[in-house]
Amino acid sequence: MDPLYKQYPVHVEDSLRRSKELLTPVSEGRVGMYVCGPTVYSNVHLGNARTFTSFDFIFRYLSHLGYKVRYVRNITDAGHLENDADEGEDKIAKKARLEELEPMEIVQRYTVDFHKVMHQLNALPPSIEPTATGHIVEQIEMIQAIINSGWAYESNGSVYFDVNSYNHDGGTYGELSGRKMDELQAGSRALDGQDEKRNLADFALWKKASASHIMRWPSPWGIGFPGWHLECSAMSTKYLGEEFDIHGGGMDLKFPHHECEIAQNVATNGKKGAKYWMHANMLTLNGKRMSKSTGNTILPSELFNGDNPLLVKGFNPSVVRFFMMQAHYSSVLDFSNDALLAAEKGHQKLMSAWVKLQGLSSSKESTWNLQAWLDKCYLSLSDNFNSPILISHLFEAIKMINQSENQIPLEQSDLDVFIQKMDAFIFDILGLQLDEQGSSQSDALDKAMDLVITLRAKARENKDWNTADIIRDQLAAAGIKLKDGANGTSYEI
Amino acid sequence: MDPLYKQYPVHVEDSLRRSKELLTPVSEGRVGMYVCGPTVYSNVHLGNARTFTSFDFIFRYLSHLGYKVRYVRNITDAGHLENDADEGEDKIAKKARLEELEPMEIVQRYTVDFHKVMHQLNALPPSIEPTATGHIVEQIEMIQAIINSGWAYESNGSVYFDVNSYNHDGGTYGELSGRKMDELQAGSRALDGQDEKRNLADFALWKKASASHIMRWPSPWGIGFPGWHLECSAMSTKYLGEEFDIHGGGMDLKFPHHECEIAQNVATNGKKGAKYWMHANMLTLNGKRMSKSTGNTILPSELFNGDNPLLVKGFNPSVVRFFMMQAHYSSVLDFSNDALLAAEKGHQKLMSAWVKLQGLSSSKESTWNLQAWLDKCYLSLSDNFNSPILISHLFEAIKMINQSENQIPLEQSDLDVFIQKMDAFIFDILGLQLDEQGSSQSDALDKAMDLVITLRAKARENKDWNTADIIRDQLAAAGIKLKDGANGTSYEI
Repeated sequence: MDPLYKQYPVHVEDSLRRSKELLTPVSEGRVGMYVCGPTVYSNVHLGNARTFTSFDFIFRYLSHLGYKVRYVRNITDAGHLENDADEGEDKIAKKARLEELEPMEIVQRYTVDFHKVMHQLNALPPSIEPTATGHIVEQIEMIQAIINSGWAYESNGSVYFDVNSYNHDGGTYGELSGRKMDELQAGSRALDGQDEKRNLADFALWKKASASHIMRWPSPWGIGFPGWHLECSAMSTKYLGEEFDIHGGGMDLKFPHHECEIAQNVATNGKKGAKYWMHANMLTLNGKRMSKSTGNTILPSELFNGDNPLLVKGFNPSVVRFFMMQAHYSSVLDFSNDALLAAEKGHQKLMSAWVKLQGLSSSKESTWNLQAWLDKCYLSLSDNFNSPILISHLFEAIKMINQSENQIPLEQSDLDVFIQKMDAFIFDILGLQLDEQGSSQSDALDKAMDLVITLRAKARENKDWNTADIIRDQLAAAGIKLKDGANGTSYEI
Repeated sequence: MDPLYKQYPVHVEDSLRRSKELLTPVSEGRVGMYVCGPTVYSNVHLGNARTFTSFDFIFRYLSHLGYKVRYVRNITDAGHLENDADEGEDKIAKKARLEELEPMEIVQRYTVDFHKVMHQLNALPPSIEPTATGHIVEQIEMIQAIINSGWAYESNGSVYFDVNSYNHDGGTYGELSGRKMDELQAGSRALDGQDEKRNLADFALWKKASASHIMRWPSPWGIGFPGWHLECSAMSTKYLGEEFDIHGGGMDLKFPHHECEIAQNVATNGKKGAKYWMHANMLTLNGKRMSKSTGNTILPSELFNGDNPLLVKGFNPSVVRFFMMQAHYSSVLDFSNDALLAAEKGHQKLMSAWVKLQGLSSSKESTWNLQAWLDKCYLSLSDNFNSPILISHLFEAIKMINQSENQIPLEQSDLDVFIQKMDAFIFDILGLQLDEQGSSQSDALDKAMDLVITLRAKARENKDWNTADIIRDQLAAAGIKLKDGANGTSYEI
């Protein structure tokens, strides 16, 4: 049988061509995917966590289809300067200076935090997770190649990419972000040190380290450090080749980061790097841009533990992931307490139906069209990874499950396929999680307490005050409180 | 008040001097500690997991004493050859070839596994976790310094350390492991490629890469890769300085790895690196050396999930850690199913006493000598980190807790200190874990079920068959089974 990727060919939205394109990998059956990872100088930003969750979902789907995926997501541990351009202090070095730590202690602390958050969100580790400092040699080699191509120049111990001459020779710097050269020139601020550049639009490949710069390496141009954009070109080329399939990242990286990557790749080997450039969209919080200064901000860890004034409570990471998956990766997503509460209900409904499904028996014949449903699910995923449409199809199936009393309208062989595919969509592809350990304990507790509540009602009804007292006292000693309400009696620990 | 490290000065067993020495850090109040980490070409070995757990405990204790500890533990992701000497294939490159993966995919897979296991064992992340491939530039610089010092030579694109001439000039190669130069010469096998060396005892600083070697970098001596021993010298110097405090590792690394490190350090800057060289001991399984070929082997993950014929069940990682802590880090530790079962009982006893302690009230005056007990605990820890003696003192305190009915023989201020110190010893320093989330749910379930069992007994006594039936039916529907036994009624889900 054909692999799934042939049955349901994938189309991806390509930011470079500005169109949806059929994914035709460089190498049949394999996908090389590079995603720009975090700069580890602070706790991972929720927006970044969403971007990486989106690409985790894409990685999971491509793997499910039968592609052998090599997924490279880097860690930026040097070279990313404060204003995202060529000036200011290195973000990690600055944090290290403020906290009186070695830069690599900062890197370790926030890499550990990043991994923890991504693990909570059930993101799989990428196939390779290379670091900028781990590829100084490769970056120096790439700079030499670009100098040899004639599109970079040394100036006072730094090396810059010559955007003007590159575009004059047919280069397409500006194509990805849709910016024209004269805008680029006008738009660049005249910052300190810009006099080293031939042109304001030029960007650094190597920066000379001042005496106080603590992250420094020797190079043919003296002591310095690599420019931020270079690492991704060097590492994607090393691990995926000069031409690979998908390059992903947040929308905010289109310019200048990805624009520069493409120029560096072309200047080194004549190819643009990836065939398809994909961008995940940003998020807002209560309808507004997140911002530390206004307090309109939230960390992933706060979403999970509820420790933020904008939330009434913490949310299970799988609920947060479900919430993210309810929006398309290329749409803006608005976080709010209410939206998360709604997602929690949806997640609960999905998981309850999944649990119920395990107990249903098959029918003599199938009267629900499984194949039509499967096709819809796969077609939505293969249409540029449309998770919200997939979820709407899952809820169609849930409706059918919930309408089934003991029997599901599927014959046994169809039921087997249905369970297997629901499992794949919910857990393998969307990456949601059922808390089995916790839920079996808390299910048992719920049911034991239902029984206690029934016996208490019965004792009261029978005016059996002795039994009612025993129940009251033993629950008090156990730290369990009963609450009588309009919808019956509930309990809390 | 003096910091704790002044009240209870630490003595460490130093393998180089072969004696217990007072720890006097290079920099007052700070400790720099380097531990040789894993070579990530397979799932982490239980022996390594024990070594890293031992140094985690040492890191935790030094931090508790008030030292500001910079703890560096590396990841070896290149250069470690099969026979641990200078010949054979790179361990990671070989695995990559066998599995048809990029070497960095192997590195990522087993780094993730390693972090998972250490997290389960509740080991704190080190302050910095540098990689060999991340420090190619620094290693090349160090080789140049050693060549300049006259104790290294290039031969056919490789660079070797000249052990003979180093010792001739006053070097002490062999001092750590207690080997004499003529033994070293005689003991080295005449392996392929040895003709490049002036002397059989010489070791590689840089190896020329053959055409088929997939991990390769440019250098002043041509394309190659660094020798295994070099990375630790380069990274400890970079992050801890030319002279730092503690260097740790497994006993099996004394020779040749640490012997070579010391020689490289001296040849580079005249200092030996660490002031104190500490070695954790090996482990056995059922009294015998672990060995894959005889089946006498076990992975950390198998200890936790019980998936190994040598175990009757899986053990909580905190029980495994407690088992490790019951032996001194410098003693051989024998793993067996029975020993783990015994440790599980001890762990349970410790945790139950801790939980009981929270509910005890103070006495009017203290009749138990808290200060004497505290001194004993700290002195055992400061005497070369003697965890088994600490645990025996904890059990003395547990005996006192268990003998207390409602009141503990300590006045309130002493009780506060006692609780705080028990917390520190059990959780912060030994690194054990109480499963709070799980235990609050299962505590509540236990108590709700106790109540149900009481009500059932009462209903039976009163021949209230209707209530007894309700209890039976609702428990059956909840999947909870009651078992009447000699010691009363218990339940299972």
